[in-house]
Amino acid sequence: MNPVIVLVRPQLGENIGKAARAMLNFGLTEMRLVSPRDGWPNPNAGPAASGADIVLERAQVFDSVADAVADCAHVYATTVRKRGVTKPVVTPEVAAREVHAAPERSAFLFGPERSGLETEDVALARTILTVPINPEFGSLNLAQAVILVAYEWSKGQALAQPSLTPIDPPAPQEELEGMIGQLDDMLERANFFFPPDRVATSKRTLRTLLTKPAWSSQEVRTMRGVLSALNGAKERRVEAQRASNAESS
Amino acid sequence: MNPVIVLVRPQLGENIGKAARAMLNFGLTEMRLVSPRDGWPNPNAGPAASGADIVLERAQVFDSVADAVADCAHVYATTVRKRGVTKPVVTPEVAAREVHAAPERSAFLFGPERSGLETEDVALARTILTVPINPEFGSLNLAQAVILVAYEWSKGQALAQPSLTPIDPPAPQEELEGMIGQLDDMLERANFFFPPDRVATSKRTLRTLLTKPAWSSQEVRTMRGVLSALNGAKERRVEAQRASNAESS
Repeated sequence: MNPVIVLVRPQLGENIGKAARAMLNFGLTEMRLVSPRDGWPNPNAGPAASGADIVLERAQVFDSVADAVADCAHVYATTVRKRGVTKPVVTPEVAAREVHAAPERSAFLFGPERSGLETEDVALARTILTVPINPEFGSLNLAQAVILVAYEWSKGQALAQPSLTPIDPPAPQEELEGMIGQLDDMLERANFFFPPDRVATSKRTLRTLLTKPAWSSQEVRTMRGVLSALNGAKERRVEAQRASNAESS
Repeated sequence: MNPVIVLVRPQLGENIGKAARAMLNFGLTEMRLVSPRDGWPNPNAGPAASGADIVLERAQVFDSVADAVADCAHVYATTVRKRGVTKPVVTPEVAAREVHAAPERSAFLFGPERSGLETEDVALARTILTVPINPEFGSLNLAQAVILVAYEWSKGQALAQPSLTPIDPPAPQEELEGMIGQLDDMLERANFFFPPDRVATSKRTLRTLLTKPAWSSQEVRTMRGVLSALNGAKERRVEAQRASNAESS
């Protein structure tokens, strides 16, 4: 069951919109508003939501935090500051794991932009959620706090797993050997392998280097094209030189 | 070593400021800007940084992505879209683990607000970083993408994982660029890039192929020696042919 995002006494409609956008990016759709300062709906919320209108349309308004979380068994109070409340403090990561493990509904409380949650709001929660932040510069805004919580939650969603672009498999060994053989031939003609007692070592070094990339069949073909071009250019240039010399002689 | 955040052709100063704020919240201080649209410094950045001035003051400006990541061995291109590029795709979580495990410097590339990174920018990176997002609503803005990457990185910071002593660290980007430039020159003279409208694509394909191996500095030097040998052989052979022709004429 997806957790609920509760904005407690939010001040600016713009920030409500940004929070909605942050939520929907990670698949959260249920927003609840406790006494929004400028009422609800708020014309500034929509433009800031950048298309996350469904979250705003479904948002419910409550008069108190208690009402807003009445159906939730697990309530997390998000705060960056330490408070004189003896409750467990968890990171977004740990909270996300707990929420996924719990069969009951969970809620995350976020306070007003300027002041954050009041002690009475925090008292309603069983757990405090704190984003571990730079102790010398803690300046998370409302939408940023929401996005970090939503992001962590989404990691536990099977649907949220990234579809990894499959990498082309490495070419069969014989294709790789063909390419290495081609290069070896070219380098032998170029007297690259010198002195003679270093030939085996040099060839092994090259082989190691060319085996490392795990190039696909297509990539090996491209490299062979490169080698043929370099070789062909040489041939063509020698031909051209010969023709030019013949002309001038 | 802390990773570098590279904003590629950022449009609004406000968003540069927001990215700086996002970074400093999680202890990242090194920002690099590639051709910021409105120049630099930008008067709109400061107010949006909410006090993260140190990040803006230290920001360096570069003309190209290649210059901006010249000293970085691991470059991640952040993009939410699938691209026809065969590179590994990782989540911010996996990238953060890799960055902490690597003794060399890493860089995260972020594209312009409207369009994201261009294919040429992505081609410079060895790895693509994609935030797993709601497939029906992907709308992460620049600062949000930065904050998620910085947040994930900060998680590993406390742990201070020991380096895994890799056998051969990848060469810095500028060494790789040198090698690619050398090969490009040779192939241009060999008329490999043909027809003209395929030049950019062919060069990108080659770049992708040569970025894939994560060759070390030593390996890059070896490859440059190989290229020089192939090039020199051609010169020598032309010389020999010329001498032989002169003799016989």
